Amino acid sequence: MARTISGLTVRDIRTPTSRTLAGSDAVHTDPDYSATYVVLTTDARDSIEGHGMTFTIGRGNEVVVAAVRALQHLIVGSNYEDLAADLGGFWDRLTFESQLRWIGPEKGAIHLATAAIVNAVWDLYAKIERKPVWKLVADMTPEQFVACIDFRYLTDALTRDEALEILRARFATRAEREAQMRKDGYPAYITSAGWMGYPDDKVRRLCREALASGWSRFKIKVGRDSDANVHRAALVREEIGPRAVMMMDANQAWDVGEAIEFMRPLARFNPLWIEEPTSPDDVLGHATIRRAIKPIGVATGEHAANRVMFKQLMQAGAIDFCQFDNCRLGGLSEALAVLLLAAKFGVPVCPHAGGLGLCEYAQHVSLIDYICVSGSLDNRMIEFADHLHEHFKDPVIVRGDRYMAPNAPGFSIEMLPASLAAFEFPGGSEWRTK
Amino acid sequence: MARTISGLTVRDIRTPTSRTLAGSDAVHTDPDYSATYVVLTTDARDSIEGHGMTFTIGRGNEVVVAAVRALQHLIVGSNYEDLAADLGGFWDRLTFESQLRWIGPEKGAIHLATAAIVNAVWDLYAKIERKPVWKLVADMTPEQFVACIDFRYLTDALTRDEALEILRARFATRAEREAQMRKDGYPAYITSAGWMGYPDDKVRRLCREALASGWSRFKIKVGRDSDANVHRAALVREEIGPRAVMMMDANQAWDVGEAIEFMRPLARFNPLWIEEPTSPDDVLGHATIRRAIKPIGVATGEHAANRVMFKQLMQAGAIDFCQFDNCRLGGLSEALAVLLLAAKFGVPVCPHAGGLGLCEYAQHVSLIDYICVSGSLDNRMIEFADHLHEHFKDPVIVRGDRYMAPNAPGFSIEMLPASLAAFEFPGGSEWRTK
Repeated sequence: MARTISGLTVRDIRTPTSRTLAGSDAVHTDPDYSATYVVLTTDARDSIEGHGMTFTIGRGNEVVVAAVRALQHLIVGSNYEDLAADLGGFWDRLTFESQLRWIGPEKGAIHLATAAIVNAVWDLYAKIERKPVWKLVADMTPEQFVACIDFRYLTDALTRDEALEILRARFATRAEREAQMRKDGYPAYITSAGWMGYPDDKVRRLCREALASGWSRFKIKVGRDSDANVHRAALVREEIGPRAVMMMDANQAWDVGEAIEFMRPLARFNPLWIEEPTSPDDVLGHATIRRAIKPIGVATGEHAANRVMFKQLMQAGAIDFCQFDNCRLGGLSEALAVLLLAAKFGVPVCPHAGGLGLCEYAQHVSLIDYICVSGSLDNRMIEFADHLHEHFKDPVIVRGDRYMAPNAPGFSIEMLPASLAAFEFPGGSEWRTK
Repeated sequence: MARTISGLTVRDIRTPTSRTLAGSDAVHTDPDYSATYVVLTTDARDSIEGHGMTFTIGRGNEVVVAAVRALQHLIVGSNYEDLAADLGGFWDRLTFESQLRWIGPEKGAIHLATAAIVNAVWDLYAKIERKPVWKLVADMTPEQFVACIDFRYLTDALTRDEALEILRARFATRAEREAQMRKDGYPAYITSAGWMGYPDDKVRRLCREALASGWSRFKIKVGRDSDANVHRAALVREEIGPRAVMMMDANQAWDVGEAIEFMRPLARFNPLWIEEPTSPDDVLGHATIRRAIKPIGVATGEHAANRVMFKQLMQAGAIDFCQFDNCRLGGLSEALAVLLLAAKFGVPVCPHAGGLGLCEYAQHVSLIDYICVSGSLDNRMIEFADHLHEHFKDPVIVRGDRYMAPNAPGFSIEMLPASLAAFEFPGGSEWRTK
């Protein structure tokens, strides 16, 4: 049965997280976790819809909504089977549109919008196949997997043939890893104890609660006040004990020289990594910091715009941990390319999550990484923050410090109609009454 | 007299250049040269307005308009004197806004919008001082000059003190260079003979006409058809003769390996540079290409998002020519930072121009570079394309192959009311009737 993408709707959804300072950090002091939320409809009788979203933190979400509208002529009217058979080609048409690419290319609002649309196509595809997205990809042949990827600008670091080689090497043992994931889940770490805007006693209480729930890896926020950084690191280390894993996140607050200096007094707390020590665009700066602060690792990626930036972060030996965001990149199609790059360069992927819908996305990406691409859990874990999951139809399921593999068809990103209605900006009930 | 920024209007202006293929290249095959056009008003009785625009090529311009609206709360209501006294601080507030930066940071639609606003402030400032922008800056002390710059993320390559040193070294001789510029103008090269979509006979005719008008430096477009590249290069070289300077522009059409390969048969035409051989984000890729194709130079910058990218292009030895765009960067405030970086690293700046309003902007930037920063014309020239200038109140004046220094107060970017009305999209008469 032929199926055509017959419609696209896009909504501006915002949650007022700035009221509690959940999500706050050194740079993003008052985020309202938000989504540019896309629904694709088709002309088929089964009424299956594709849902996709991109994450923002409030103001500016309306700009991404406008960018989705600018792209929609590239999807509405398309034949679904053609799309599904050539996701790499579809991705190239979206990102290389002759006029629209000027306002990127492959970065900023237009690329965030691309992610919402591309992920909605993946959700639709998985629902039609009645599989969760991770399983849809895990059931692809290596040839089908690489057909989802646009290799433009990658070939000096990763060719299609090299990608096939990586995928084929893990192909025979996929079933074992899939069974393991269904049984044990995927390792995770928790961020939500350490938001910047929280007072000490709240951080202490959240650390204790997280420990009691089985968490063993904790991330804290650091910033431009060195004394405050040391104070917070000491407090959290005291609560979680010497053996728990601690990570630190500066959220781009520092210049290169400052990063090296600010990390000096923090080394004694034994952080596994410093995340986003400086500008997300500064590949060479990250490499300089990494050389200077060894053995502390350098992590970045949630603001790295596209696969070309990740290619260079790896070529330059700039990072120990790759933290791409499945909707900062142009959706899963580009994320698959970065998984392959990371496997080639031997860099573990620990995807950015914690924002509205990001945990829901990230679990699929890491399952694909383990089952199909890297075949390894070494130094790999998914970020987790314990809020906003109640708005999703199939929220993540976490047991202890692991994400359990999702079973529902699709990309786990479909929000509840009541949440969409309440948090739509500015007309929803949560915004009208405040 | 105190003066407050009392209003901001923004308009979507598009010219239908795709109808003639003016501006076409290997990637942007059908551009409609466009502007997100901003006007700032104040509460002063003199009715002086600040005009600024950012350049796009059609679809997506409405997304940049939305981004201007998202930023306007950061300028409307501001005290003008405070802004003018601390342009660097103003720039940091625009680009580091805690929620809006998520949809950049400092890239894509939000950064293009930043440029329109920042340049409108510069236009207002210069008009109030009754000077062209280049002269306003040329009359600043080194201390005033650096106060216009945000050094965030630059300090590992360029500190405020180093910037002062560069400016002080040229300070005593500024008047000589200013006099020379007023007399002789600034060197330029022409792009408009070689647009991709033009047939051979039109290219030949345009080369002849340009030669007759005194042009001596010519840029052509190249792309993914190697035979067509050679054909066009041979044709233009035949028309312009062996001594004229020829540059080539691939507009991001190639992967890194392809760039090296496609340039091999073109070397015999003796190009000064290959421009945008690959992704604008690929610092390391440009460095690889540069090493491989010497002595042909590598040029890029019109799509480089911000000063952090230029910092790395210079640190990595990736470019021979720096071609930033005064509205791809976040306006003149960021362009001044890149001029200083380029001077420190000894890389000549040849600003991107040719688009709607870009020649008008670029002349100011290059005059500032020569008079205040680099003090050199070696290997420096401004791009020129001979179209769309009729829409400006103070269009560029070109004599032979040089831009004459503009005299009118402001940034030369104010468009004629009739042009704004006719080309407003989609309601203007040029769009309604087609």
